[in-house]
Amino acid sequence: MSEYSQSMRVYIEDTDCGGIVYHANYLKFMERARSDFMRKYGYEHTAAEKEGFILVVASLTLNFKASAKMDDLIDVSVIIQKLTSSSVIMQQVITRNGQLLVSGEIKIASIATSSGKLCRMSEALKTNLKSKMVE
Amino acid sequence: MSEYSQSMRVYIEDTDCGGIVYHANYLKFMERARSDFMRKYGYEHTAAEKEGFILVVASLTLNFKASAKMDDLIDVSVIIQKLTSSSVIMQQVITRNGQLLVSGEIKIASIATSSGKLCRMSEALKTNLKSKMVE
Amino acid sequence: MSEYSQSMRVYIEDTDCGGIVYHANYLKFMERARSDFMRKYGYEHTAAEKEGFILVVASLTLNFKASAKMDDLIDVSVIIQKLTSSSVIMQQVITRNGQLLVSGEIKIASIATSSGKLCRMSEALKTNLKSKMVE
Amino acid sequence: MSEYSQSMRVYIEDTDCGGIVYHANYLKFMERARSDFMRKYGYEHTAAEKEGFILVVASLTLNFKASAKMDDLIDVSVIIQKLTSSSVIMQQVITRNGQLLVSGEIKIASIATSSGKLCRMSEALKTNLKSKMVE
Repeated sequence: MSEYSQSMRVYIEDTDCGGIVYHANYLKFMERARSDFMRKYGYEHTAAEKEGFILVVASLTLNFKASAKMDDLIDVSVIIQKLTSSSVIMQQVITRNGQLLVSGEIKIASIATSSGKLCRMSEALKTNLKSKMVE
Repeated sequence: MSEYSQSMRVYIEDTDCGGIVYHANYLKFMERARSDFMRKYGYEHTAAEKEGFILVVASLTLNFKASAKMDDLIDVSVIIQKLTSSSVIMQQVITRNGQLLVSGEIKIASIATSSGKLCRMSEALKTNLKSKMVE
Repeated sequence: MSEYSQSMRVYIEDTDCGGIVYHANYLKFMERARSDFMRKYGYEHTAAEKEGFILVVASLTLNFKASAKMDDLIDVSVIIQKLTSSSVIMQQVITRNGQLLVSGEIKIASIATSSGKLCRMSEALKTNLKSKMVE
Repeated sequence: MSEYSQSMRVYIEDTDCGGIVYHANYLKFMERARSDFMRKYGYEHTAAEKEGFILVVASLTLNFKASAKMDDLIDVSVIIQKLTSSSVIMQQVITRNGQLLVSGEIKIASIATSSGKLCRMSEALKTNLKSKMVE
């Protein structure tokens, strides 16, 4: 419903000698989509840092179904699945012309820049994210 | 018991503007350790390709506990947890001076270079890997 | 005059622990721009490979004047400076709001996929590129 | 004479769909060698930062002669060619079994962490580097 998606091109830098995208690079695609999604809804890395918290990846699961190749145009989506005061769980899917390539679940945690410990994200950000949750 | 481990240095290329290792780059460290582990026990990417199969990452889970930083010396371990004719599940742990940083479970599948479908790995490789399983 | 330029976002993956873009990553930005420029004017990596040649980087010079940072929107330009049957020299500039960050000169060579040696690029590509040269 | 060299393995992460090492990644190999060379002779990134300066890449030239491939063992050397109070010019060569693959000249500048401007490096570092110059 409130799914966010964006297109990306696969360049040579993303591929490996198997002729396909290197497995770790799908995480870059996913983070680009999360970054733009978050920027759109009130979070910019450098700005949040001044407010005293940063969002970091706490855990993740990836399932590889098919491979993206050089010159491909892929779509990377973001759905907020669960939201607490200090964390967000996002579902992300990478497709090419509707074909599923990679799916992932990424847990993001809010960390205090002072202590490095879990902390509440700003209320403004939490309210924004809540309004984007799929219902 | 039959755990394999190797040391790696963290260089600037591995870090991000948070001052720590970029989350996707831990997958590179883990693959370097798997590559050297597999090379030691009878699998070299380019050689296997000529035999008709390659090993690819099918799925993975990562848990981030603490961060590696610039100039750190880290240890990356590999344990074979489960082995079938066409897949291997490996447990990998990244530590620094004994402190757990990141743990991961990586499922590797054997894929036929001709068809791109699941296939049996060579018997020689399977026998070698079996002898390295933790009991 | 016939300058080609495209905008790119700086993501966390591009930065290092100095808080700025990692020096080697500017080459990725430049290659993305070259790839899209070349795609627009008749060269796609995978298609050319079937025609028997690929374009590879033969030499390059980079000058770093100022740094791009996380969340920046940068512009990456491409100008063809010199063209022969088997090579292209391109001038590339990376700017942010008009400020020069990095300039580069990249020499691309056409290599035969069969022999790995210098070869003529396709006439169609050469004609296309010639029409895009700055005069 | 005082040449410094170290061996590195080429992993899948380093390669691209051309089956060879991605051109920008040779800069990573070169920086790993420079980092270890500098660490050995008195400069560690995080330590120097506290002293008020960092070393950054100011300009570079690369010449590609032949390609490194997956599983290759390569050697990366460092020679100090020129040294001033605020900069170092290093010659670096990447070889495989003695065959030249890539050569580079890298100019490193000392930058004040406070102002971001050129500054003198520490006397201790300069003295160390001077003793390592090829004569």
